[in-house]
Amino acid sequence: KRSYKITLLPGDGIGPEVISVAKDVLVLAASFEGIKFEFREMLLGGAALDATGVPLPDETLAVSKESDAVLLGAIGGYKWDKNEKRLKPETGLLQIREGLKVFANLRPATVFPQLVDASTLKREVAEGVDLMVVRELTGGIYFGKPRGFGTNENGEETGFNTEIYAKHEIDRITRVAFEIARKRRGKLCSVDKSNVLEASMFWRRRVQEISAEYPDIELSHMYVDNAAMQLVRYPKQFDTIVTNNIFGDILSDEASMITGSIGMLPSASLGDSGPGLFEPIHGSAPDIAGQDKANPCATVLSAAMLLRYGLGEDKAADRIENAVLDTLNKGFRTGDIHSAGTKLVGCKQLGEEIMKSV
Amino acid sequence: KRSYKITLLPGDGIGPEVISVAKDVLVLAASFEGIKFEFREMLLGGAALDATGVPLPDETLAVSKESDAVLLGAIGGYKWDKNEKRLKPETGLLQIREGLKVFANLRPATVFPQLVDASTLKREVAEGVDLMVVRELTGGIYFGKPRGFGTNENGEETGFNTEIYAKHEIDRITRVAFEIARKRRGKLCSVDKSNVLEASMFWRRRVQEISAEYPDIELSHMYVDNAAMQLVRYPKQFDTIVTNNIFGDILSDEASMITGSIGMLPSASLGDSGPGLFEPIHGSAPDIAGQDKANPCATVLSAAMLLRYGLGEDKAADRIENAVLDTLNKGFRTGDIHSAGTKLVGCKQLGEEIMKSV
Ligand SMILES: CC(C)[C@H](C(=O)O)[C@@H](O)C(=O)O
Ligand SMILES: CC(C)[C@H](C(=O)O)[C@@H](O)C(=O)O
Repeated sequence: KRSYKITLLPGDGIGPEVISVAKDVLVLAASFEGIKFEFREMLLGGAALDATGVPLPDETLAVSKESDAVLLGAIGGYKWDKNEKRLKPETGLLQIREGLKVFANLRPATVFPQLVDASTLKREVAEGVDLMVVRELTGGIYFGKPRGFGTNENGEETGFNTEIYAKHEIDRITRVAFEIARKRRGKLCSVDKSNVLEASMFWRRRVQEISAEYPDIELSHMYVDNAAMQLVRYPKQFDTIVTNNIFGDILSDEASMITGSIGMLPSASLGDSGPGLFEPIHGSAPDIAGQDKANPCATVLSAAMLLRYGLGEDKAADRIENAVLDTLNKGFRTGDIHSAGTKLVGCKQLGEEIMKSV
Repeated sequence: KRSYKITLLPGDGIGPEVISVAKDVLVLAASFEGIKFEFREMLLGGAALDATGVPLPDETLAVSKESDAVLLGAIGGYKWDKNEKRLKPETGLLQIREGLKVFANLRPATVFPQLVDASTLKREVAEGVDLMVVRELTGGIYFGKPRGFGTNENGEETGFNTEIYAKHEIDRITRVAFEIARKRRGKLCSVDKSNVLEASMFWRRRVQEISAEYPDIELSHMYVDNAAMQLVRYPKQFDTIVTNNIFGDILSDEASMITGSIGMLPSASLGDSGPGLFEPIHGSAPDIAGQDKANPCATVLSAAMLLRYGLGEDKAADRIENAVLDTLNKGFRTGDIHSAGTKLVGCKQLGEEIMKSV
C-alpha cells in the first residue's frame, strides 16, 4: 500500500502556518518515493470550540481513526484559557490521545550541532545530547479515577486525582521503550518515585520483570527528582528514558529546553494498531500567530516521524530529516534560532528552502 | 528565652560529618550573641534501622517534638535500598516531617558569585539566580489515601496513589509563600497543572483567593511542565515559587542543580508552631562517607536557617552566612566545588575556616 490517508489538524495559533509547510514538504518527499496521500483537514482545540462548541468534534475523531496517520499543529490560546475544563482546547488534545489509544509518546531531545549555542547550557554540556523520552500517554494521573472536587471528613473542600497504573499499561509502554532503546544506543533509564509512591513501586517491579525479555539492553532506574537534576548536570548520560504520563510531561519539556531549540523538536504518539498522532512539542504561540514568524521545523520533523513510525516509509523520512539539516547548514533560520551570521527568514521561506533540499 | 534545645539527627552517610561541623559553627556563632544550646543527638534513617529496627524510633520523634529546632544531616544508603517501604530510611524522613507537621519546605536556590562557573548553565544565565521554592511538604500524593496495590475490574494488578489537597492545606502554604515573597523581591509564582488536574484547579483557585490578602505581591501562575523549562531557559525570572509536594520535589532539585553547587544549599521545613526541621538538600553520599570529603556548607547554612526561621535569631544567622561567604572569598573549597586556583580542603578544615570568620 503506497497511498495513505492523512488527517491534518492545524489547530490554533501558529498551528495552521506550520501544518501548511509540513504538508508541502511531506507531499514532495513522498512523491520522490512513489507515495501518494489523501489529506483531510479537521477541527481540533480552540478552532473546534469556536466552530462547533466542543474541543474534539465527533467527526474529527472518526476521520482521524479511519486515516493512516494524524498530523497535528498546536492547540490553545489566551481566548479559551478561562473556559471550564470540558471546554478547554487541552481537553480536546487529551480526548484525541485517548480516542486514538496512542499510549506511547516519543519525544526526542536532540541538540543540532548547528544550534548548540542556542542552549543555555555550556557548549561542552549541550553538545552531542541525543536522548528520547518515552512517555506513557493515556494513563496515570491524567486519566485516573476517582477525580474531582469533594468534601473531606471535616467538611472541608478538596480537589483530588488518582495516579493509577495497571499491569498491561506499564508492560506495553516498557516494551515500546526497550524496542526503541535497541534501535538507539541500547540504554534505557526508567524514571519513577518508588521511594515514596506505590504506583511507582509497581511500575519499577513491572519494568524489572519485562527487562528479562531484553537482556541486550542496559537498564537503570532513577528517581524523578534526581532525573530532573541529572538532565541539567550531564544530559549526555541519557539514551532512552521511559516514564509515566506526568513525569514524562515535566521531564520531556525540561529535556527539550536543554537543547535550546524547542522550535526544532517533533513528537510521535503511537498505539498498538491504528493511526499514530504526530505533533511538534512546542505550543500554539498565540503572540506570533499569523505573522509568518513560526519555525516550521518541529512540524516538518513530526511529518518525518509520521513517515518513519506511522507508515514505515523510512526513505521518505530520511529525505525530510536530511533536508532540514541541509537547510540549517545553509544558514537559514527563523527568529527563534537566529544568531549573528545566519539568514533570518520567515516560516514560509524556511519551508521553501527545506523543499529545495528534499 | 536565650537558651534553646536542639535535636541533632546526623543520619547516614556523610550526615554525621556535616552535622559535627555545623554544630560547632552553630555553638560559636550563638555564643557571640549570648545564646546557649542544649543538644540531644538522636537516631533517624538507616542508622535507626540498624540500631532499633525502625527508621523513626518513637523516642526520636518525642525528643524532636520537645525541642526548639531539629537539625538533620542526611539519610539513606545502598544498604537499605531494597528494604520494603516500611523499613526504608526515606520512610523515617517522611514520618518525621509528618510527625512535626512541618508543612512548609523552604528551598533556596542561590548562585554564589564565587561559584558561578560550577553551574552547567552559561555564566550569563546562572549569574544572579536567587530563588526560593516553597514546597508543600505534608500533603498531596506523598500522603494521600487511598494508596497501595490492587486489582482492577479486569482482574489485573494495579499500583495507585491519591493526589489530594484540602482547602486549609493550600491556604496555609500559600500564606507562607506570600509572606516569604514579601521579604524577598515581592514576586510569587504558583506552579500547578490546572489544565489537566482537578487537584491543581482547586490549588489555583485557592491561591487566587488568598492573593487578595497580599495586594503588594505580584502573583503569577505557571504549568509545571513550563516551569521545568523556564528554570533552564531563564531562571532569573523567578523570585518565590510555591507548589505542591511532588512538583516541589522535582522543581527544587532541578533549581538546585542549576546553581551548580548543591553542596551549598540548605532547607527549612516549618509548621504552624512547634520546632522546624532544617537539613541540607543534598543526600547522604555513601560513596564519600567517612572520608572527610563532604562539603559541610549546606548543613552549616541550614543551621543559619535554623537560627533565622526556627529561633528568630537573625544576628547569629547573619554571622554564619557571612562566615561562609568569607570562607569562599578566601578561596577554600571542598572537592565538589573546587576549581583551578582555589584551595582544596576537607570537611573538617572547611569547618575550621568558617569558624575563623564567624
Ligand atoms: C496541553 C497539555 C494538556 C499537554 C500535556 O500535559 O500532556 C502538553 O503539556 C503536552 O505535553 O503535550
Ligand atoms: C528522600 C525522599 C523521600 C525526599 C522526598 O521526596 O521528599 C527527598 O527527595 C527530598 O526532596 O527531601
